[in-house]
Amino acid sequence: MPIPAPAQDALAALLGARFSTSVADRDLHGQSETFHTAPPPDAVAWPVSTDEVSKTLAICHAHGVPVIGWGTGTSLEGHALATHGGLVVDLMKMDRVLEVRAEDMQASIQPGVTREALNTELRATGLFFPVDPGANASLGGMAATRASGTTAVRYGTMRDNVLALEVVLADGTVIRTGTRAAKSSAGYDLTGLFVGSEGTLGIITELTLRLHGQPEEVASAVCGFPTLDQAVECVTATIQSGIPMARIEFVDGEAARAFNQYAGTHLHEGPHLMVEFHGSPATVKDDAERFGELAADFGGTGFDWATTPEDRAALWRMRHGAYRACLALRPGATAVVTDVCVPMSHLPAAVAAAAADIKASGLVGPMVGHVGDGNFHSQLLIMPGNAEELAAAKGIATRMAERALAVGGTITGEHGVGVGKRPLMRAQHGAAIGVMAAIKAALDPTGIMNPGKMLPDMN
Amino acid sequence: MPIPAPAQDALAALLGARFSTSVADRDLHGQSETFHTAPPPDAVAWPVSTDEVSKTLAICHAHGVPVIGWGTGTSLEGHALATHGGLVVDLMKMDRVLEVRAEDMQASIQPGVTREALNTELRATGLFFPVDPGANASLGGMAATRASGTTAVRYGTMRDNVLALEVVLADGTVIRTGTRAAKSSAGYDLTGLFVGSEGTLGIITELTLRLHGQPEEVASAVCGFPTLDQAVECVTATIQSGIPMARIEFVDGEAARAFNQYAGTHLHEGPHLMVEFHGSPATVKDDAERFGELAADFGGTGFDWATTPEDRAALWRMRHGAYRACLALRPGATAVVTDVCVPMSHLPAAVAAAAADIKASGLVGPMVGHVGDGNFHSQLLIMPGNAEELAAAKGIATRMAERALAVGGTITGEHGVGVGKRPLMRAQHGAAIGVMAAIKAALDPTGIMNPGKMLPDMN
Repeated sequence: MPIPAPAQDALAALLGARFSTSVADRDLHGQSETFHTAPPPDAVAWPVSTDEVSKTLAICHAHGVPVIGWGTGTSLEGHALATHGGLVVDLMKMDRVLEVRAEDMQASIQPGVTREALNTELRATGLFFPVDPGANASLGGMAATRASGTTAVRYGTMRDNVLALEVVLADGTVIRTGTRAAKSSAGYDLTGLFVGSEGTLGIITELTLRLHGQPEEVASAVCGFPTLDQAVECVTATIQSGIPMARIEFVDGEAARAFNQYAGTHLHEGPHLMVEFHGSPATVKDDAERFGELAADFGGTGFDWATTPEDRAALWRMRHGAYRACLALRPGATAVVTDVCVPMSHLPAAVAAAAADIKASGLVGPMVGHVGDGNFHSQLLIMPGNAEELAAAKGIATRMAERALAVGGTITGEHGVGVGKRPLMRAQHGAAIGVMAAIKAALDPTGIMNPGKMLPDMN
Repeated sequence: MPIPAPAQDALAALLGARFSTSVADRDLHGQSETFHTAPPPDAVAWPVSTDEVSKTLAICHAHGVPVIGWGTGTSLEGHALATHGGLVVDLMKMDRVLEVRAEDMQASIQPGVTREALNTELRATGLFFPVDPGANASLGGMAATRASGTTAVRYGTMRDNVLALEVVLADGTVIRTGTRAAKSSAGYDLTGLFVGSEGTLGIITELTLRLHGQPEEVASAVCGFPTLDQAVECVTATIQSGIPMARIEFVDGEAARAFNQYAGTHLHEGPHLMVEFHGSPATVKDDAERFGELAADFGGTGFDWATTPEDRAALWRMRHGAYRACLALRPGATAVVTDVCVPMSHLPAAVAAAAADIKASGLVGPMVGHVGDGNFHSQLLIMPGNAEELAAAKGIATRMAERALAVGGTITGEHGVGVGKRPLMRAQHGAAIGVMAAIKAALDPTGIMNPGKMLPDMN
């Protein structure tokens, strides 16, 4: 259903040139990073204030127009596709850092601030925002998908680092959740409810984030292992030993090959761990030595330490470029990306089973992972339009998810549900899906907020 | 309204002697730790399984009987009072540690396990559960009130340490929330929603908790300060310096006097900080030295180190006994206990303003606090039945809450809302109260779950 003319008129009156129905603008906001596709939205809005978001949603609510929030468009599960048509609300013009309260280690920002922009702004304060999903995503989008990434093992996820929100509800009501205090027991944890709600309950228009002190000393390294099992077992042993890793990332041989081809590195084309330590010079030295001893027990060799900031930046740029590097292994391919997370003791078996399944399929599917959390990904490369490959990739992804659920894990550690993981939600949540549906119906009774996402059979 | 006869018959048939309407049992479950009072409940049930809780709630739901969860009865805001009559569901017979998965640093327990019982069970594993509100509370109750306490500055609150729950909803439906993975982005954070919901959305029947490694080295000390301002400013400076405190507790002169009288200690009767460091021998030594230097800058003197486990236990037993020790300052008194939490930079002003207000009132009101989180309490001693004192104490409490809200803090850092903080909820949450009410109505449409608590004007 296209947007009714009175709604279009009201939006144009409100936003002027910041409301568009042009094919170019719609197409730009109909893209997805992965194999998920949908027709473009009917229109795009670029509000610049909470008040404009509120009025935009009030108009959409009155006319039954679906509303889809948009940040940098880097989500991997089609979260921002306009599967039911409607209006994409692009929040990237709301990109101001509103206040940095260094003495409280907090920042208040608009949702269109990206994590790199925030950290640039924070550089002189001695503080930083640690959550790092790789892409230079908008912090509003990261909150909406409960993102995490390479540093969650040390600093937690968006759940742990968002203190308070301003949210515009479906009917345009503006609420504030949370406080600036370190903790609160005053009522339901609405901040936690909106973080990870994927735009299905409201649009985030302001975030108060917890900042962390820039570590005095940082050391990063990459280290090779003879076998995948040994690399992953080293991770489990490291976490169980309590070494406070800032990062501990797994890269399989296929991904190492992708880095070599794409980034010009010279890794041996087998499994690796990429690690980082944060602390004082003494603790970093101590932690790195303990890790080195453990890694040697599992056959780890060829430690390559990145000692300068430039070398470290290059190392993590390589890791952050993994998605594009792996895509380049098969020119023209798109990807089905998996994202299971399992309890630490089940990680070696989960990775081994996934590797065996991928190998049996004949697909190219490099694996990387934030393995310190028990979270790993395979990026299954398929050609667009090849139904057989798509079915094979989806079968692998589903089996990985089922194995994760069988050991108490989750179908998505950090990417979120979007359209991709929707069919697996009942298997994970059982009767609790009814509670999620009741909350959705209570807060968005007409179902305009990002319909077709997250909850099965809702819209 | 008393419990209808058919409901009583059904509950008696289900639970036998574990359902009681005796005056003695009702009176035991009509108590409160503080000045809040209400008539006793109409009946008490002691289920021993999730299935019994489910059937109990289904009966209550069918007959419109209010249901109030009960743990150790140590909450401070009248959370478990039967203000609307009905059935108290005492969960203390569900007290089994179901599974300890040491390799994943997790335990699954029933809600009636107390924190001390769990830590006794964990002793041989090298792990412990850190959240420590002082009272030997049940972990189900601690989750329901989003409790924290002395160690939250290092290990977080119940929000951070509950991974998954089993919950029985108002109509008897049993759901599971969360996973055993370290993180998940699969749908709304229902675990976070039920933690801190104070029994208003369901009854928690199982918890999966995050455990932590027992620190290799522990050092505790108490240290005096010339003035309250200097003690509190030392806390702010300590937190801002990034020293990883395991505990940093404030005790004012009145509370020190209470300890001396009640516990036979010999503290100078002025402000103190009680601190603890966890880590390796090297890091503990380093942290303690850095703190010692900072404390000296603020006039801290007379460091008394508790070096043996017995001395440390005595130190924290003293702190944990603060509530009873302070009550004993005025024999026969009851207490209005405040619980604000403010951003760290506002802590010195908040404590100073509270102290001035208490002094002006003429009431005895010792102050203690988990000041590393910006959270502090005054325990305002009043005689039961003295309306003038009650009004004065409530006035102080309300002004403390208003000052906390004015700087972005919260009316309750860890005690929860119960009946006591209910009148302040609108001031804290504004329009977000409507979202809480919508969630409550969606999950408990007949309003049987702990009516009269948390949300204003709901029941």
